[in-house]
Amino acid sequence: MMGGGDVERLIQLLSRLPGLGPRSARRAALTLLRAPQTRLIPLAQAMEQAAHSVRTCSVCGTLDSSDPCSICADPSRDHSLICVVETVGDLWALERSRLHPGTYQVLGGVLSALSGIGPEDLNTASLLARVSSGEVREVILALGATVEGASTAHWLQEKLAAHDVAITRVGHGVPIGGALDVLDDGTLAAALSARRPAQ
Amino acid sequence: MMGGGDVERLIQLLSRLPGLGPRSARRAALTLLRAPQTRLIPLAQAMEQAAHSVRTCSVCGTLDSSDPCSICADPSRDHSLICVVETVGDLWALERSRLHPGTYQVLGGVLSALSGIGPEDLNTASLLARVSSGEVREVILALGATVEGASTAHWLQEKLAAHDVAITRVGHGVPIGGALDVLDDGTLAAALSARRPAQ
Repeated sequence: MMGGGDVERLIQLLSRLPGLGPRSARRAALTLLRAPQTRLIPLAQAMEQAAHSVRTCSVCGTLDSSDPCSICADPSRDHSLICVVETVGDLWALERSRLHPGTYQVLGGVLSALSGIGPEDLNTASLLARVSSGEVREVILALGATVEGASTAHWLQEKLAAHDVAITRVGHGVPIGGALDVLDDGTLAAALSARRPAQ
Repeated sequence: MMGGGDVERLIQLLSRLPGLGPRSARRAALTLLRAPQTRLIPLAQAMEQAAHSVRTCSVCGTLDSSDPCSICADPSRDHSLICVVETVGDLWALERSRLHPGTYQVLGGVLSALSGIGPEDLNTASLLARVSSGEVREVILALGATVEGASTAHWLQEKLAAHDVAITRVGHGVPIGGALDVLDDGTLAAALSARRPAQ
């Protein structure tokens, strides 16, 4: 046993984090234990604080320390433009890009017969409520380019068809800065079919 | 800002851990925030607990939730055999191998003119006290096969020369330029069993 039960338990819990294996969990634990006042206790307190404050936004479904979240509560965002994403991580990626001026809807997953995820498991009730209010002009479907993402997009499109709202999908194709010869056939097919006149 | 200040702060502190960059810190934070009761709070509590309980062993210098540590307090260990290592991580590596029946001395570093680490910065006082007590028959120097490790071993050898104690060094098997805590058990076993009297 290394360092007594408390150290073992810390290493064990750290090693469950994605991206940390047993070895890096031990390194992380040592780093923390060597500086209890400046590293270990601040991190523990940040975790306790987050556990108490962070909740699911009742409007869009993201994780935030306030409800409605800081995006949904921001009057400078375009609330008539909703970007539908699968996960909170996807929302964070778009926020880092600062490219989306509107708000979001986090589904919390995509339809998947294999994983047993049906329409009732997705966070869509508040999306339909927002669209029904008539204040939404466009819904951007920014779901993954997978079979599940595509079928979820198709299903959402049908659900929203009755409303007076534009429904768009993010473009699929060759990533900027990416080389063609590393791409799979599906991406190449999408890139070819999305071709436009060169300028 | 992603998820409000509390989420930002959690990600920022996680990203300072060795082995976690910004991207994996975000993934780790999401994993924790999605399961506050089963993952986030238990980890926070394990950290608080470790911060309160873990201290430096006054005998050997390792980190443990008791003092003397669980190794120094274990009557089944061979207290006449002390293995000198550079770091707590090195001690953990040897403990995982279950190859060393004795106790340890954690120096907390090696002599290094470049890093400004002198003899007074190393945890050697308790080693000399233990050896002076006459109850130690062998000191194994298990320092890294680096210039600093070798010069530290040489310096320790001179300090211990006046005492009636065998001084050995771990043998071939430690790769030149390598650190102990990345080695596999087989290499550690070879190094331990090939130990020879220091020259």
